[in-house]
Amino acid sequence: MKTRVIKYFAGLQDRICSKLEEIDRSSRFLKEDWSLDGGAGGGATRVIEHGGIFEKAGVNFSAVTTQLSEMLAVRLKVQPQSAFATGISLVLHPESPMIPTVHMNLRYFELANGDAWFGGGADLTPYYLFNEDAHHFHNVLREMCNLHNPLWYPQFKKWCDEYFFLKHRNEARGVGGIFFDYERENPEQFFAFVQDAGNAFLEAYAPIVEKRRNEPWGEREKGWQKIRRGRYVEFNLVYDRGTLFGLETGGRTESILISLPPEARWTYNYEPEAGSREAALLEVLQKPREWA
Amino acid sequence: MKTRVIKYFAGLQDRICSKLEEIDRSSRFLKEDWSLDGGAGGGATRVIEHGGIFEKAGVNFSAVTTQLSEMLAVRLKVQPQSAFATGISLVLHPESPMIPTVHMNLRYFELANGDAWFGGGADLTPYYLFNEDAHHFHNVLREMCNLHNPLWYPQFKKWCDEYFFLKHRNEARGVGGIFFDYERENPEQFFAFVQDAGNAFLEAYAPIVEKRRNEPWGEREKGWQKIRRGRYVEFNLVYDRGTLFGLETGGRTESILISLPPEARWTYNYEPEAGSREAALLEVLQKPREWA
Repeated sequence: MKTRVIKYFAGLQDRICSKLEEIDRSSRFLKEDWSLDGGAGGGATRVIEHGGIFEKAGVNFSAVTTQLSEMLAVRLKVQPQSAFATGISLVLHPESPMIPTVHMNLRYFELANGDAWFGGGADLTPYYLFNEDAHHFHNVLREMCNLHNPLWYPQFKKWCDEYFFLKHRNEARGVGGIFFDYERENPEQFFAFVQDAGNAFLEAYAPIVEKRRNEPWGEREKGWQKIRRGRYVEFNLVYDRGTLFGLETGGRTESILISLPPEARWTYNYEPEAGSREAALLEVLQKPREWA
Repeated sequence: MKTRVIKYFAGLQDRICSKLEEIDRSSRFLKEDWSLDGGAGGGATRVIEHGGIFEKAGVNFSAVTTQLSEMLAVRLKVQPQSAFATGISLVLHPESPMIPTVHMNLRYFELANGDAWFGGGADLTPYYLFNEDAHHFHNVLREMCNLHNPLWYPQFKKWCDEYFFLKHRNEARGVGGIFFDYERENPEQFFAFVQDAGNAFLEAYAPIVEKRRNEPWGEREKGWQKIRRGRYVEFNLVYDRGTLFGLETGGRTESILISLPPEARWTYNYEPEAGSREAALLEVLQKPREWA
C-alpha cells in the first residue's frame, strides 16, 4: 500500500502543478527537493510567487519517518512509536481578492504497530463571496463522495465546518469543503476514495479561477484580502494539526509554512460597514451554510 | 496585595501611554474599556495605529477571573480551579524599521487555593541592529535588577533568551531582555521588583526611539521589517503562553491579538545577502549574546 500511495501522491503533484502553470499563464513552479538527516525521508516543494494569477502557490509532497510526539501519541491513543507519513498538501493564494484561496491535503499514516489510515480534505476561502462558486466547489466534492458512499459528503462537510473554525473569532475560515481523518477501516476502499478526491481537485477549483480572473478590484478589496489573510495565518498557526505536527516533529519549516499568505494585515477591531460585500462574507462565515 | 497590584498596573498604563503620546507627537491613544460577561472582570485597551512613530502600539490592562484550563492546571501542577489574573501588556511596532519593536508584560496570578505569583518581562526586537541600543536596553534592566538581587539579571536574561526562541526557525525573536515567571516566594519583595521593572520600561526604550527616529530607510528596509514581523506573528501564535492562555480562556480577542504587527510578509525561503545588515541581524539571533 505504502509504495502505491507514495507513487499516487507524487504523480498527483506533477499533474496539479502542470495544470496550475497553464492557469497562471506567466509563471513556472520553482522546484526544490529536500531530504531530512539520517535517511528519515524527504519531499518535493513547488512554489510560485508573484505569478500571473497566483501571488503565492505552494504544492508540497513529502514522505517521512518520524517519532510520534507524546501529545500526538496521547491523541491517537497509542504508545509512542515511530510513524511513517506521506502526503500532498497545497495552498493557493491568488493575487486577485475576487478569486478564493484554496487548500487541499491528502495524507497517509502508518504506525510501527501496523495501524494505518488516510486523512485529508479540501476547503475554499473566499474574500468576496460568489454563491455560485461555493455551490460549484461543493457540488464537485459531493458528486465525488457519492461515488463511494452517500453518507460521506454530509459527514465530511460537517467535519470540515467544525475543523476549519476559529474559536477565538467565532467564525469559519471560509465556506468549507470536506475533511476526514483517522479513516482506519478498509484502507483499500479509502485509497480509491483518496485518489478520486485528488483527481477532483482541479475540477472543483479551476473553473472558479477562470470565472473570476477578469473581475475588477482595487485598493479597498486588496486591503480586505490582507485582513482576511491575517485570519488564515491565525488558523494555521494556532489550530492546524498538520502545521503544528510538522513544526513539532522537526519538519522542513519553509515547506510547512508555505501555506502562509504572501502578506497579512492586523487592524485593531476592524469591522466592515453594514450592508457591504465584506459584511456579507462575515455573515456566512459566522453561520455555515449548505452549499450542495 | 491584589488591590495594590491592580492599582499599580492601571496607573502604570496611564503613565506609559502619556509618555508614548509625547514620543509619537502626532497621535493619541484610542481608549476602549471592556468587561467580560458574568462579572468575570474586564480591562482597558489603548491603541495607536498609523501614528507619527508607532505604526501600531497596543497597551493593555486587564483584571479577570477565569477557570484554569486542564492544560494549564497540569503545567502548574495544581487541581483545576478558578484563578484571578491581572496584568499590563504592551507591544509597540514603530513605522521605521530602524526603531526596534518592544514588548513588556507584568502580571500577577492568584489561585483559589491562595497560591499567588508574579511573572513578566521585557524584550527588544530590532530589524536592523545597533549594538549600542541593545546595550542600553539591557544595562537599564540589569541595573534595575541589581537593586533587588544581583543574581536576577543573569538568570532572567537567560530565561528570556530561552523563552523568546523560535525552535522551528532556530533563532531568537530579538536581542532579548528579561523574563521571569511563577515567582511564588516572598510576594512583597517581588511586588517591589515588579514596580521597579514597570517604572524602568520607558528609560530602557524611549532613548532608543529618540536616537533612531531620524535614521533614513526605504522600500528595502520596510520589506525586511515585514518579513521579520512574520516571525513575530509565528512566535506569538505558536509559542507565547500569554496569547494562547488568553485565547483559550475566552479573553477579548482584539485585545489579545493587538500584539500582532500591522503587516507581515512571508516570502518562500528568503535569505538576506551574505555580508548585508540583514544577515548581520540573523547572525546575532542565531547566537544570543551578552549585552550588559
